[in-house]
Amino acid sequence: MLSDQIINELQAIVGNANISTEKADRICYSYDATQQSFLPEVVLHPGSAEEISRVMKLANRELIPVFPRGAGSGFTGGSLPTKGGIVLCTERLDKILEIDEENLIATVEPGVITGQFQKAVEKVGLFYPPDPASLKFSTLGGNVAECAGGPRCVKYGVTKDFIIGLEVVTPTGDIITTGGPTMKGVVGYDLTKLLCGSEGTLGVITRIIIKLLPLPEAKKTMLVLFSSIDGAAQAVSAIIRDKIIPTTLEFMDGRTLDCVRQGTGLVVPDEARAVLIIEVDGDREFLDKQVNRIAELIKPLGVVETRIATTPEESEALWQIRRSVSASLRKVNPDKFNEDICVPRSKVPEMIRKVDAIADKYQIPIVNFGHAGDGNIHVNIMVNKKVSGDILKAEGAIQEVFKAALELGGTMSGEHGVGIAKAPYIPLEITPAAALYMKAIKRALDPNNILNPGKIFFDEENPIEYDD
Amino acid sequence: MLSDQIINELQAIVGNANISTEKADRICYSYDATQQSFLPEVVLHPGSAEEISRVMKLANRELIPVFPRGAGSGFTGGSLPTKGGIVLCTERLDKILEIDEENLIATVEPGVITGQFQKAVEKVGLFYPPDPASLKFSTLGGNVAECAGGPRCVKYGVTKDFIIGLEVVTPTGDIITTGGPTMKGVVGYDLTKLLCGSEGTLGVITRIIIKLLPLPEAKKTMLVLFSSIDGAAQAVSAIIRDKIIPTTLEFMDGRTLDCVRQGTGLVVPDEARAVLIIEVDGDREFLDKQVNRIAELIKPLGVVETRIATTPEESEALWQIRRSVSASLRKVNPDKFNEDICVPRSKVPEMIRKVDAIADKYQIPIVNFGHAGDGNIHVNIMVNKKVSGDILKAEGAIQEVFKAALELGGTMSGEHGVGIAKAPYIPLEITPAAALYMKAIKRALDPNNILNPGKIFFDEENPIEYDD
Repeated sequence: MLSDQIINELQAIVGNANISTEKADRICYSYDATQQSFLPEVVLHPGSAEEISRVMKLANRELIPVFPRGAGSGFTGGSLPTKGGIVLCTERLDKILEIDEENLIATVEPGVITGQFQKAVEKVGLFYPPDPASLKFSTLGGNVAECAGGPRCVKYGVTKDFIIGLEVVTPTGDIITTGGPTMKGVVGYDLTKLLCGSEGTLGVITRIIIKLLPLPEAKKTMLVLFSSIDGAAQAVSAIIRDKIIPTTLEFMDGRTLDCVRQGTGLVVPDEARAVLIIEVDGDREFLDKQVNRIAELIKPLGVVETRIATTPEESEALWQIRRSVSASLRKVNPDKFNEDICVPRSKVPEMIRKVDAIADKYQIPIVNFGHAGDGNIHVNIMVNKKVSGDILKAEGAIQEVFKAALELGGTMSGEHGVGIAKAPYIPLEITPAAALYMKAIKRALDPNNILNPGKIFFDEENPIEYDD
Repeated sequence: MLSDQIINELQAIVGNANISTEKADRICYSYDATQQSFLPEVVLHPGSAEEISRVMKLANRELIPVFPRGAGSGFTGGSLPTKGGIVLCTERLDKILEIDEENLIATVEPGVITGQFQKAVEKVGLFYPPDPASLKFSTLGGNVAECAGGPRCVKYGVTKDFIIGLEVVTPTGDIITTGGPTMKGVVGYDLTKLLCGSEGTLGVITRIIIKLLPLPEAKKTMLVLFSSIDGAAQAVSAIIRDKIIPTTLEFMDGRTLDCVRQGTGLVVPDEARAVLIIEVDGDREFLDKQVNRIAELIKPLGVVETRIATTPEESEALWQIRRSVSASLRKVNPDKFNEDICVPRSKVPEMIRKVDAIADKYQIPIVNFGHAGDGNIHVNIMVNKKVSGDILKAEGAIQEVFKAALELGGTMSGEHGVGIAKAPYIPLEITPAAALYMKAIKRALDPNNILNPGKIFFDEENPIEYDD
């Protein structure tokens, strides 16, 4: 329990209106998209890097764990206050400080909502490609901490590829800047990229410098229904082999389509057992040529139907199927584990076959969709928590899914991160020597293990106690 | 002095043919492009990560400094054996292990020559953009260690942007892998990007996984002569503001052109006081449109002459002027300090004005050329080491150039790194808190300070003794 004196000190730092120990407030900040819940002792809404610095110094002095939090939309528990202590929200740091059209750069605070930022830069003809599914509510700070992805990453890269500088409060409370507003820079270690995807364990992000691109002149969307998942997978390979890198190359397998049919009124022919949504962007005149070439390449691969959008509205309609997936899945089966393994893209068909075999073995439905273009598959293990034994089955299946991905040269997570959800599985992917190297960095920068403790690396001596 | 016993142990690790203590051999590996020289005690040519691991373990046991080395073409002394000890050459690790056309990935050993790698991937229609001027002899391992750049980085990004995985021998001799052959991956800290540009201080790179792009269908080169540097700088801004990102946007100032006129037979009209070489690449049909648009944009900005290449040979001829710069400069003045500051690109004209003022103040010629598209300017301070006082003047000028770049939001180095050449200036750019954060990482991973000690961070307690 935090003493009154400490609460008073924290209050003096952030101000009366920006601290709460009320249970109702603490509950609001106790969970994320994993739907697990851990109650913090106090919730802070600091208004500046200086305030965060003072909080971190106090936390080190008193050995209070601090859990930074954006919108709490993470899938792996990265922001959960697993050991009580302080939840440190960046919501008030929500300003777009500058959009520099001359240098194609923006400077923002971490609490800016990703989708709102995208709209702001698009207004002046610029483009911020990373598009995690959560973009309507997730924050740029959270996106940087987790290195968020999204459909467009196949062509443009992930969050990290657009972050060129940061202001960060270190675990011990110093305020430092990393990188800067230049396109190149090699003075000292690249702390910017180290902090991207470090899940809030190495510093609290208080300012972000973002590299932007010119907004592509136009885009064109096509939706292709295939009679088999193999056809769809071969189509992905055929497109890439032809040296075309579309903006998105999204896929859904047959089971996903079944859920969509069940859960929505969308018309999907029965013969369709897989879907690709292929979007290309760039110079207007060039797009037709690309779309025609893609149609030609995939024609022999069991195409049931091809729909091509000619207006933004039609494009939006084609995306409906993809956008309805999460809701449809939840309708069919409210409980699911959504993993996001990533394999070299040529290995997607083999991965899907392995997942099917795992589903058969454990007698549990597994639904696959995701970003085929970069081999990032969302493997959804459909459990019913009320059915006894289902959770155990799911845990077995998850572990086998991870092992299968790793056998194919892949990773356990393409964009969701490790948090606490995947921490126990870290030894499957990271060798002891590499884990030691990573932990040495964490220990050196956060000697008191104050900042987001227990995330990424499973803390065997001090495990997190999960509620069931 | 290394004892016979240690030499014998090293010999047992790498084999008779791959160790030398001969003075002639040691001299060969004593210098780099800075033309400074430090004699190592022994030169090793290991043939595998395992051998390097054993060398590192021995070095830690005996506290012998180890200096990894690619081709020794660095501009800042990153590979110099400043404290004697072991030079560890990666020359024998020179195999391209795989070019995976399906996944647009290559796996190579660190000793592969960058230019040869580019040719190999281009043969199968793939593309590795980073193109440091040294590419005909520098190695990919060295390029990764320094995070090399080059003209094409304005459109495609620097070396780091293409490196997705590494095998590394840690300073304490463990062999670890980082990242992998997937386009996304967020499990654990991004050691890959941390190691890129860490100048061989955090690990010895023994394998590199590289992301490739489809080779653009065609490219088009234009050379534009301007009557003033301001016109050229405005042209850069006008192009970017129009949302065109050319493949290269190289510039040379009037003094550079004077050197080229003096040093070569190339015809450059007297009115020309600045040059831009603009290259665009992509779909063939699209290029004419881009070139015409660029010509239209820059027309009002004091264009003396525009030359457009229509064949690869003509393109090569246009590049001649740029390629002749280094040799021309050396002809006019054999001694020069080549700095590579980088500023936000809109600040290039202001930076050039500041450099001109510094040249006037110190009464020393300064010649500017480089990558205007990303604000990365090669500032060449032309000294004559035989003229007494010239070195002192140059040192004053360099420091002022750095300060000017930093005042404009820039950095002391866009692509050359820090090494020993810029280490004394680190406090100008990196605040004490950020330097502590970086040094904490170095100390945690290399507790005995065995691997490339004294690089990046100026070692005040144990400074390097320079020969004059």
